[in-house]
This record gives sequence, structure tokens and C-alpha cells, in this order.
Amino acid sequence: MMKLTILGCHSATPRENKHTTSQLLDVNGSMFLIDCGEGTQMQLRKSKAKFSQIKNVFISHLHGDHFYGLIGLISTFRLLGRTSPLNIYGPKGIKEIITLQLKHSKSWTNYPLNFHELSSTQSEFIFEKDGIKVETIPLDHRVYTNGFLFTLESKKLKINTDVIENYDLKPFHFSQLQKGMSITLDNGNIIKNKFLTLSPDPPKKYAYCSDTAYFEPLIEQIRKVDFLYHESTFLETHRELALKTKHSTALQAARIAKKAGVKKLMLGHYSNRYSDKQVFIDEAKLEFDNVILAEDLKTISI
Amino acid sequence: MMKLTILGCHSATPRENKHTTSQLLDVNGSMFLIDCGEGTQMQLRKSKAKFSQIKNVFISHLHGDHFYGLIGLISTFRLLGRTSPLNIYGPKGIKEIITLQLKHSKSWTNYPLNFHELSSTQSEFIFEKDGIKVETIPLDHRVYTNGFLFTLESKKLKINTDVIENYDLKPFHFSQLQKGMSITLDNGNIIKNKFLTLSPDPPKKYAYCSDTAYFEPLIEQIRKVDFLYHESTFLETHRELALKTKHSTALQAARIAKKAGVKKLMLGHYSNRYSDKQVFIDEAKLEFDNVILAEDLKTISI
Repeated sequence: MMKLTILGCHSATPRENKHTTSQLLDVNGSMFLIDCGEGTQMQLRKSKAKFSQIKNVFISHLHGDHFYGLIGLISTFRLLGRTSPLNIYGPKGIKEIITLQLKHSKSWTNYPLNFHELSSTQSEFIFEKDGIKVETIPLDHRVYTNGFLFTLESKKLKINTDVIENYDLKPFHFSQLQKGMSITLDNGNIIKNKFLTLSPDPPKKYAYCSDTAYFEPLIEQIRKVDFLYHESTFLETHRELALKTKHSTALQAARIAKKAGVKKLMLGHYSNRYSDKQVFIDEAKLEFDNVILAEDLKTISI
Repeated sequence: MMKLTILGCHSATPRENKHTTSQLLDVNGSMFLIDCGEGTQMQLRKSKAKFSQIKNVFISHLHGDHFYGLIGLISTFRLLGRTSPLNIYGPKGIKEIITLQLKHSKSWTNYPLNFHELSSTQSEFIFEKDGIKVETIPLDHRVYTNGFLFTLESKKLKINTDVIENYDLKPFHFSQLQKGMSITLDNGNIIKNKFLTLSPDPPKKYAYCSDTAYFEPLIEQIRKVDFLYHESTFLETHRELALKTKHSTALQAARIAKKAGVKKLMLGHYSNRYSDKQVFIDEAKLEFDNVILAEDLKTISI
């Protein structure tokens, strides 16, 4: 199960009802925070997320609208009495920024704060646990930036419903089969696992790509993912500005989605100059049809 | 004219409708920002303040609920195209914290950012312009902390309304008199200034005291001020906690107000453990009657 909650999806500066980038990804109950703009902790409260369940934070790059809320969240974790470790994955420099502020406030965390600083320009696996893998997606922005690819591998074999009706199976047989075990029927007959099961579901994949210019090298890595978040700061009317600031237009995001053959695309990281967001959808649909808009506090099942 | 807008008045961690400390003081149109907790820029927008008018920021201490919003505000000023200098007065260390983050985001401000770092444990004058003076008020907290005393000196002489009715004065005579000039009547008679004027109004004073334990040494400096903001994180029921964390109770804040003979007291910096704020007023009134509660986005004329 993958469930994504958008905490903020606007670029540059937060406004009263426009929050800067942060997302909470729930993978089978494990909570991953992706980016953490100013005010993210208030958005987390609005989303009713349990703070203590967040164990891993991924920061794409060190522009303020993606990480200025992190120090406040770290401090709040301490004030809430957190004891479990917090892992922070982000560009080299993030440890210095956070620890400098903790030093000056004389408020070290009571819980382990583990920094995993990133500096490779090649994709690397940075997390693996409980069938969940995270790898970086190198992006093309004004500062060192990574997107993140989340993969949930299903280890459970699927029950072959076409054949099991021929056997008198008890409920416990099903979990044995899903785990790959052969089963013993009441009459003593042993049925080999392979006769009753099919391969597990293919892995579920979520690709987060923000911030980046139009960048074809990322296509191979996100091919056929179930869900792609790709920034679309601008529309084609501001294509030159996108080029200059190393951001993407909605059309470019859609083109990446199309070339990668992803199942669904979500746009976000909108410039504050656009009041109507529907135009992003209209532009993206010229290239790719299954596209939706990120909205603050929107939740999507992937 | 002094007008104070409370942007946030809650301690420790920001919540959906409880913002951490920040105040905007308007002195004859000059805007002074006092402390800057996370989300202050959103509160500034809600208050309809003009960002470009803020030229001086005063940070009391380097606990997050008093300055985590500063880096975001500085970045937003840049994105809004600010060119005029911004002066930041705060404890030693603030320059390093801010510049480290600007360095990593490769986003230096396009406007001059002037840091005035404080480290004296004695009160010092740190600002003087247009009849407005600011001096630090050394406080007693877990880290190096200053309150701030804002003084507006009136240079305009007051017109003595008891005597001017005996003269045939024209409108321009009044501004001449307020500036200390003697005037010439239509009949050629010269009337000396001192016969028509009284001394200027006494200076107007606002004292901001947060965060601090009960600290009698500050009394002398804030004697008879027009308006005192004094933190009251706790009630007497949590007096031991106040002692341990170097905060004050509402009763202690009121006692300071009484001993200093201030005209009016405002309480704030409430712990999140109290849902009903009226109890702070009730406790404070045991010592001092003219007391009000700080509330987010409340504006008071001083």
C-alpha cells in the first residue's frame, strides 16, 4: 500500500494558503517525509499525521522552499519527547546547517539524529527495509538536486484462484501459500506451492522529481512507474524563464511522463504567478492524458 | 504613534492556529520586526503588512520559536525584488546561521544584509533614527537573551491652548511653534516661542521582554513604560517548571509590571498546555490590574 499526502506544492515563497514543498508518503504504515518547506509541521498537524511515525526524511536540495521547515520539525520532535532515531537524507551541507542551529540554541535532540549526506551525481540506493527501497534520481537544477524513487516490492505470492477451488483449503493454508510454503491437506496429501500460486504483484513505484529542468536522462530510471510527481513551475508561455531558472513547464513534465510510459502524472511546484491551476492540466494533456494537479493536503492512493 | 501587531504569541512549537513569537511594531510608519518564529512571513501576509517597509529586525535569542522564520523571510525579500538594506540585530551566531544557509542554496540576497550581533550582558543602545531609540534589555534565560526597549521621543513642542486664543494665529504659525520658532503676526509683532508653547509630550515607550525567568534587575530599565509585553509561559501551578526552564508565570510577569509601575501589561508566550487563556489574566490581576492577553494578529495602539 502506498498513500501520498501533499503537504505543500507551491514554489518559492509560502503564502497564507499556498505551502511550499513537502509530501508524506505512507508505505505499508512506514511514513516517509519528502522535502520540508517552512510550515511543514503545521501542515502535518492539519493532515492528522502522527509525528512519531516519521522515521525518514528525504531532502531533494538546499533551496529554502524545500527544507526551511526541517529545523523546526526536528525541534518539535524533541519537545514532543521523541526517542526513536530520525534519519535525514539530503545534500551535503544539511548536517552543518541543522547542527549549527541546534548548537546555538543549546538544544540537542534527545533522540539520535542520523544524517546521510548525498553528493553523488549518479543514482544510488540509499534506503532498504521491509521490502521498501529508495534510490536517488539525479536531477538538473541550479544546485545539487536529487529526486527519489520509492519501490515497494511485494514478496507475497498470489493465490491462483483458478485452481484452488479443486482443493479443500483452510484459512491458514492461504498464508502458508503466500509465503511460498507447500501445504498438507487433511487427507495427508502434500500439494506443492507452485501448483497453487502465481508470482507476486509487480513492485509498486513512486517517483518524486522536483526541482528540475527538462531532463531526459531521468526517463530510463522512472520507466513505467505507477505514479510520477514532476515539477511544473511554469507554463510554456514562460518557457524561457523555466530554462533560465532550471525548472520545467507543464508540457515538459508531461513529455517526460509520456516518454517514460508512467501510469499517472501529478504536477506541482507552481509559480505564484498563476492563479488558475487548470491551465497546467490543459497544457500537460497535449502530451499526456492521465495527469492530475497536486493540491495542499490532497491524499492519493498509488 | 506606536502600533503593535502580534503575529504570534505562543511558545515552543507552532500549531495550526497558534503561532510562535513575532511582533510588528509600527513607530510613525517605521516598521520594526521583533522576533521571527517559523511561519512569520505567512502571518505578515495575513496582517496585510507591507514587506518592503520592514527595515530592522530584532531577535531576542536563538531558540527556534523566536527565529526559525527569519531565513525564510530573508529569502522571500529577495524573491520580491527587495533592494533596500535589512538590518538584523540579534545574538552572536545569527550571522553564521543565516549566511550558511544562503551559501548552500547559492542564493545571496540582492539587497544589503547587515548583521549587528549582540553579546553584551549590559544594556546597550543599538538603534537611533527619527527620534526612535532602541536599547537592549538583558534578560535571564537558558541562552543569551535580550528584550528590547523602544522609545519614541517627541520633538514637537505642544501648543499652549490656554494662551493662543489671545492671538490671531494662521495655520502656518502652528507648525513654526511646534518646531520651536518664534512667530511674526500680521501686525508685525514678534511673539517668542516660549510664551505660546509647552514642553513636548514625554517619550512613548514599549518594552518587549521575552523569554525570561522572573528577573528583578530589568525593573529599573522599564520603569513607567507605556506598554510592557512580558512573557508568561506558565501559571503558578507550574512555578517549578518555570524556574527550571527559566520562564515566568503570569503572576511573576504582573509583579514585574507592578514593581516597574508600567501603564499597561500584555501577557504572552503561552505554553501549549493551557487551552483557556483567561486564567492568565485572572492570575495576573492578583498583582496588577491593567493587563491584557496577546493574541495572534491582535493590534494595539500604544
